[in-house]
Amino acid sequence: MTAAGEEMHALVERLYPLCRSITGDGVRATLEIVGEYLPLRVHEVPTGTQVLDWTVPQEWNIRDAYVADSAGHRVVDFAASSLHVLGYSVPVSATMPLAELRAHLHTLPDHPSWVPYRTSYYRPEWGFCLSQETLDALPEGMYEVRIDSTLADGHLTYAEHVVPGQVSDEVIVSCHVCHPSLANDNLAGIAVATFLARALAQRTPYYTYRFLFAPGTIGAITWLARNAERVDRVKHGLVLACAGDRGELTYKQSRRGDAEIDRVMRHVLAASGRPHRVTEFTPYGYDERQFCSPGFDLGVGSLSRTPYAGYPEYHTSADDLDFVSPEAMADTLAVCREAFAVLDRNRRYVNLSPYGEPQLGRRGLYDSLGGRSDAKEAQMAMLWVLSLSDGEHALLDVAERAGLPFDTVAAAADALHGAGLVKA
Amino acid sequence: MTAAGEEMHALVERLYPLCRSITGDGVRATLEIVGEYLPLRVHEVPTGTQVLDWTVPQEWNIRDAYVADSAGHRVVDFAASSLHVLGYSVPVSATMPLAELRAHLHTLPDHPSWVPYRTSYYRPEWGFCLSQETLDALPEGMYEVRIDSTLADGHLTYAEHVVPGQVSDEVIVSCHVCHPSLANDNLAGIAVATFLARALAQRTPYYTYRFLFAPGTIGAITWLARNAERVDRVKHGLVLACAGDRGELTYKQSRRGDAEIDRVMRHVLAASGRPHRVTEFTPYGYDERQFCSPGFDLGVGSLSRTPYAGYPEYHTSADDLDFVSPEAMADTLAVCREAFAVLDRNRRYVNLSPYGEPQLGRRGLYDSLGGRSDAKEAQMAMLWVLSLSDGEHALLDVAERAGLPFDTVAAAADALHGAGLVKA
Amino acid sequence: MTAAGEEMHALVERLYPLCRSITGDGVRATLEIVGEYLPLRVHEVPTGTQVLDWTVPQEWNIRDAYVADSAGHRVVDFAASSLHVLGYSVPVSATMPLAELRAHLHTLPDHPSWVPYRTSYYRPEWGFCLSQETLDALPEGMYEVRIDSTLADGHLTYAEHVVPGQVSDEVIVSCHVCHPSLANDNLAGIAVATFLARALAQRTPYYTYRFLFAPGTIGAITWLARNAERVDRVKHGLVLACAGDRGELTYKQSRRGDAEIDRVMRHVLAASGRPHRVTEFTPYGYDERQFCSPGFDLGVGSLSRTPYAGYPEYHTSADDLDFVSPEAMADTLAVCREAFAVLDRNRRYVNLSPYGEPQLGRRGLYDSLGGRSDAKEAQMAMLWVLSLSDGEHALLDVAERAGLPFDTVAAAADALHGAGLVKA
Repeated sequence: MTAAGEEMHALVERLYPLCRSITGDGVRATLEIVGEYLPLRVHEVPTGTQVLDWTVPQEWNIRDAYVADSAGHRVVDFAASSLHVLGYSVPVSATMPLAELRAHLHTLPDHPSWVPYRTSYYRPEWGFCLSQETLDALPEGMYEVRIDSTLADGHLTYAEHVVPGQVSDEVIVSCHVCHPSLANDNLAGIAVATFLARALAQRTPYYTYRFLFAPGTIGAITWLARNAERVDRVKHGLVLACAGDRGELTYKQSRRGDAEIDRVMRHVLAASGRPHRVTEFTPYGYDERQFCSPGFDLGVGSLSRTPYAGYPEYHTSADDLDFVSPEAMADTLAVCREAFAVLDRNRRYVNLSPYGEPQLGRRGLYDSLGGRSDAKEAQMAMLWVLSLSDGEHALLDVAERAGLPFDTVAAAADALHGAGLVKA
Repeated sequence: MTAAGEEMHALVERLYPLCRSITGDGVRATLEIVGEYLPLRVHEVPTGTQVLDWTVPQEWNIRDAYVADSAGHRVVDFAASSLHVLGYSVPVSATMPLAELRAHLHTLPDHPSWVPYRTSYYRPEWGFCLSQETLDALPEGMYEVRIDSTLADGHLTYAEHVVPGQVSDEVIVSCHVCHPSLANDNLAGIAVATFLARALAQRTPYYTYRFLFAPGTIGAITWLARNAERVDRVKHGLVLACAGDRGELTYKQSRRGDAEIDRVMRHVLAASGRPHRVTEFTPYGYDERQFCSPGFDLGVGSLSRTPYAGYPEYHTSADDLDFVSPEAMADTLAVCREAFAVLDRNRRYVNLSPYGEPQLGRRGLYDSLGGRSDAKEAQMAMLWVLSLSDGEHALLDVAERAGLPFDTVAAAADALHGAGLVKA
Repeated sequence: MTAAGEEMHALVERLYPLCRSITGDGVRATLEIVGEYLPLRVHEVPTGTQVLDWTVPQEWNIRDAYVADSAGHRVVDFAASSLHVLGYSVPVSATMPLAELRAHLHTLPDHPSWVPYRTSYYRPEWGFCLSQETLDALPEGMYEVRIDSTLADGHLTYAEHVVPGQVSDEVIVSCHVCHPSLANDNLAGIAVATFLARALAQRTPYYTYRFLFAPGTIGAITWLARNAERVDRVKHGLVLACAGDRGELTYKQSRRGDAEIDRVMRHVLAASGRPHRVTEFTPYGYDERQFCSPGFDLGVGSLSRTPYAGYPEYHTSADDLDFVSPEAMADTLAVCREAFAVLDRNRRYVNLSPYGEPQLGRRGLYDSLGGRSDAKEAQMAMLWVLSLSDGEHALLDVAERAGLPFDTVAAAADALHGAGLVKA
C-alpha cells in the first residue's frame, strides 16, 4: 500500500501548480492528467444552462496577474502561486495608491506568513491574496495592478468514470476539482478517488461505481440536473475531501443518518481499530450538501481525515504538498476499499429452512463430535446467518448482532448458499 | 418584569383571605377580583348536572364557624383563617366534651404550629383544622362547636378568558381556584395565568389561548363535559399550580410525553439555563389528570415551581403570603411567555426548492465572498431550515438538530419564506 | 420451599445413574421415574420419521462397555459411569495396542481427574471417555475393548404433561432429557420442571401449561414437526437447563428480545432483588434454538443458573450430585412460579370511563378526606391502571411505568374490574 501512497502523492504533485476554479482550462488540465490514470468521460456544459435552481456561469480563464510596485517589481505574482488571485477575478489593469488597493487585498492576520484562498464566483469582483507579512512590507505609493483574465461564455467541465458492476444500482464517489493549489483540499481526494476506481476495477464489483470529478456545488448540481433519471439508481455514495492530512479519519454521515453507507462506514471504522470520528450530517461542507438535499436525500456520506475547516491550514497556502502524506492517503484508500468490500457483499438472505435448525452435519457444515463447548466461530456464524436471514437483516446486521467479523459472516452465508440453505 | 412580580403578589394578597371551595361565593368573589384585570366569562352550572362520570354537587357557603370554650372564648375561629374549617363541612351547632370533639379535629403533629388544610367534598362531615399547639393547650371540658354553613342546591362556578389568535386551534391554560387561604397553591397560579393572558393579548398570537379558572377536578371535568365539541381544537395546554414559591421550576410532562408542549417546555427550560426539573406524567396532581385522561389524552403539561406535595408547607397555613415571592412569580411568567413564543412559531415548513440547494446568493441571503470558513449562524440556520423542511420537521426540530437558538432558526425561516423558498 | 428443594434433589439422585441419550431405554426409564411425580403422556416416534429438516435416527441402547488390560482388569468401565462411553457408540469387540486405541479415547488434559462427556449421534463412531490421570497410568500394550451396544430401528421417546388452563393459549416449558450422568445439565432442569408442573396444578392457571421432556435438538424438532397446528397456540415458553448449580440466575431472552416472557422474566428477576443476569439471544445453547428459529420465532426464553458452557464442570464428570444444591433448585423453582404468576395475570384492560377520571369515591375506592398528600399506593395503582388501560398497555407495563409492585397493580385492576370501571 505504500506504493499506492507514493503514486497518489506523485499525482498530487503534478496537479498542485494548476489554477483550478469552477470552470476553465485549469479543470480541463486536471482532468487530462487524471485521465492518464483512468479513462474519463468529460462533459462540457454551456454557460447559461439552467441546472436546478442555478445557472452555469461564464467560464473563467486567467493567464497572468500581479501587483507591481513603482519600480516595476512584482510584489504579488500569480505565477508564484495560483492562490494569489481572487478566484473568478474580473480583468483589471490600473495603477492606484496602496490605500485604494487595500480594499482588494486579502490576508490572514493570525497567520501572517500564509496566503489565504478566496473566491467571488457570483459577484463581479477582483482581488489579490497575499501574506500579511508581504502586505506589511509594502510602502505606501502607487502600484500597478493587472489581472489578465477572461470571463466569457464557455463551458463548465466535469468528468465521470464508471466501474461497471453486476447490477445497475450505483454507488457514487464524488470529489471536487475546483480548488487551486491546495493539496489536501482537494488534490488528495482526487488522488484517492482515482486509485480507488483502479482498485475496484480489479474484479467486477457487485454495484456499479460511478466516480464524479466535478467542481464543488455547481458541478454536483449540474450532474444532478442532467441525471434526473439516473439518480434513482444511486443507492449509496461517498464524497471524498481532505483525504490526505495526517489527522484521524472522519466520517460524516448522510442526512438520513442510518443509510447503509453510514452503517457500513461506522462498522468498518470501528472494526478496523483505527482512531476515528463519526459525525452527524450538517448541511454545510462539500457536495454531500447537494446529494443529501431533501428532494434527493441520497445515502451519501463524506469521508475526510481532518474535516472541513477543522485545521488552521484549511484554505491557505499552508495546505501544501508537505501537508499531505503518502501514508495518510494510502490509509484513506484502504478504508474506502474495506468499506466497499463490505457494502458489496451486504446482501439480505432468506433462510430456506426456517423451521427449526437445518441439519448442518449431514451437509458437512458441522462438527460431528458433540458435547464440546468450543463452538467454532464459523459454525456460530452459520447459525447466526440462519437465525437472522428472515428478509429483514442484511449480513452487516448479522455481523453486528453476532459480534463476529463481517468476513466470517459473509463466508458463512456463502457456505449456506452453496448448500442451498439460503437464497439471496 | 419586577413590576409584574409585584403586581402579581398584590393580586395574591387580595385573594388570600377569601374562603374558596369547589363551589360557593368564595369562588365568585375570587373571579370578580380577577375580572378587574381581565374580562371573564363566568359560568354557573346547576347542582345535579351530570358531568362525565360525576355530578355537580350542592353548593357550599359558610358564614361563620368556631369552637368556643366553656367561657365562651373562641379557641378556633374561622374568622381568623379560612383553613380552620374542614372544607364542605355540614352545619353543626352543639356542645360536647373535648373527648368527643377530638374526632372532628385535624392537626399536623409533625408541624405543631401549622394548621392543615382538609376537605370532605363527597361525604357529609364536619370538622375543624387547628395547630397541634392549640389542641394541646385545650383543657378537657365542654366546648361549643358551631359551623354556620349551608349545603344546598345552587351552582358550580368557573370562568373563561379567551385571547383570540390567528387560528382557531387552541392552547388551554388552566388553574384551580378552589383552594382557600393557600398562597402558592394556587393563588400564585391564578396570578401568573392572569398576567400571562394580558401579556399574550399585546399582539394577536398564532393560537387562540383559552384561560380556565375553575375548581380542581370537578371544575375541569365540568368544562370538559360541556365542551365536548371544542376539545378537538385544544392542541396544547398547560396547568399552572404552585407557581410562586422560591424553588426551581418543574415541568411535568403530558401523558403522551412527546407532545409538542412537552418538547417546547423542555427546550425553553434547557435553553434558558435555569436550574429546573422535567418529570414524567403521573395520574396524580392537578387538572392535567383530567385533560390527560386516556379518552382525551390532550397534550397538556403542568408547570410548577416546587411541585405538588413536594414541600412541607404544602396544604398548610405555612403556605402563606411570605411563602410566595414576586421574583418567583415573575420568573414563572417569563418562562410561560418564552414557551408560548416558541410554540406559536413552531411551524412546519416545506422547502419549495428541495433538489439541491437553492442559490441563496442571488437572493441576497448568502455571502458572496467564498473560501472563508466562518459560515455565519444565520446562514447555517437557513441551510438547516432548507435541509429539514420536508414536512416532517417543525422549527423546534430544526433548532434542536442544528444546535441553534430557536429565534435564529425562526428568523431564518422568515427570511426564506420572504424569498419564496419555503411555504408554511 | 426447602422441602421442595430436598425432594427435587432426591429426584436428581434417582435419575443420575441412568445412561440417557437422544433415544433408548435410558430416556424411557427417566420418564418412568418422572411419571411417578406427574402423569406423562409418552410418545414413541419410529426411526426414519422425517421431522422438519431431520430424520429420527436409529435407536441406541447399551448394556456394557469397557477397556480391559492384558490381565483382564477393566481400566475403563461403563458400569462405573455412563459418561465413560462415547454416546451413540457403535458396537465394538476387539483387542488392540494402546497406540491404536488412543484415537478413540477422550480426556480433559486441563482437568486431569475429570471425565468428559462426548457423543457422536450422526456419524458412526465408537469411543471411551476417561480421565487424563487414568490414561496417563495406562502402560503400553494390548487392550481389549468392548462396547455391547445396539443401533437399530426403534423409536425416539419424549413425553408431555399438560396443566389445563382457563384458555387454550399455551405456555411451553421444555427441558432436555438426553444427557447421561450430568446433574446440572440437565437433571436439575427436569426436577424443576416436574415440581413446577405440580405447583401450577394447585389451581387452574390462566394459560394452559405444556411441559415437554424430550431429547435435545432432535426431540424439540420432533415435537415441532408433529405439532405444526398447535404451535400457533404457544404464546410463551421457557427452556429449563442448568437449573441447579450455585451460581446466580441467568435469563437468556428469546430471539425477539421483547417478547412478553422476556419482559416478565426481566421484571420478576429485577423486582426480586436477586443477583442475576439477563443475556441476549444467541442461536446456540438449548432448545430455544429450535423454538426461536426464524420460521417459528416463538416467545421462548431460557432460564439457567450458570448458563450453557459457563462453568468448568460443564459436560464433565464434575457436574455431579454435589454440584447441584437443593437451595439452588428451590430458588429456580420459586422464580419460575413468580414469573408465571405475573404472566398469568398480565392482562390488557380497557378503561370503560376514559373521559376524565371516574369518581372512585362514590364507589368506595377512594379516601373521602381530601387535602392529604399521602396518596396511598393502592389508590395510585388504580389511577395508573385507569390512565394506561387504553388497550395498549398490559398490567406489567402499568407496573413498570408506575414503579409499583405488579401485585399491587393487579389488585387495583381487580378492584376496578369489580366496580365495572375496566374490562379485560
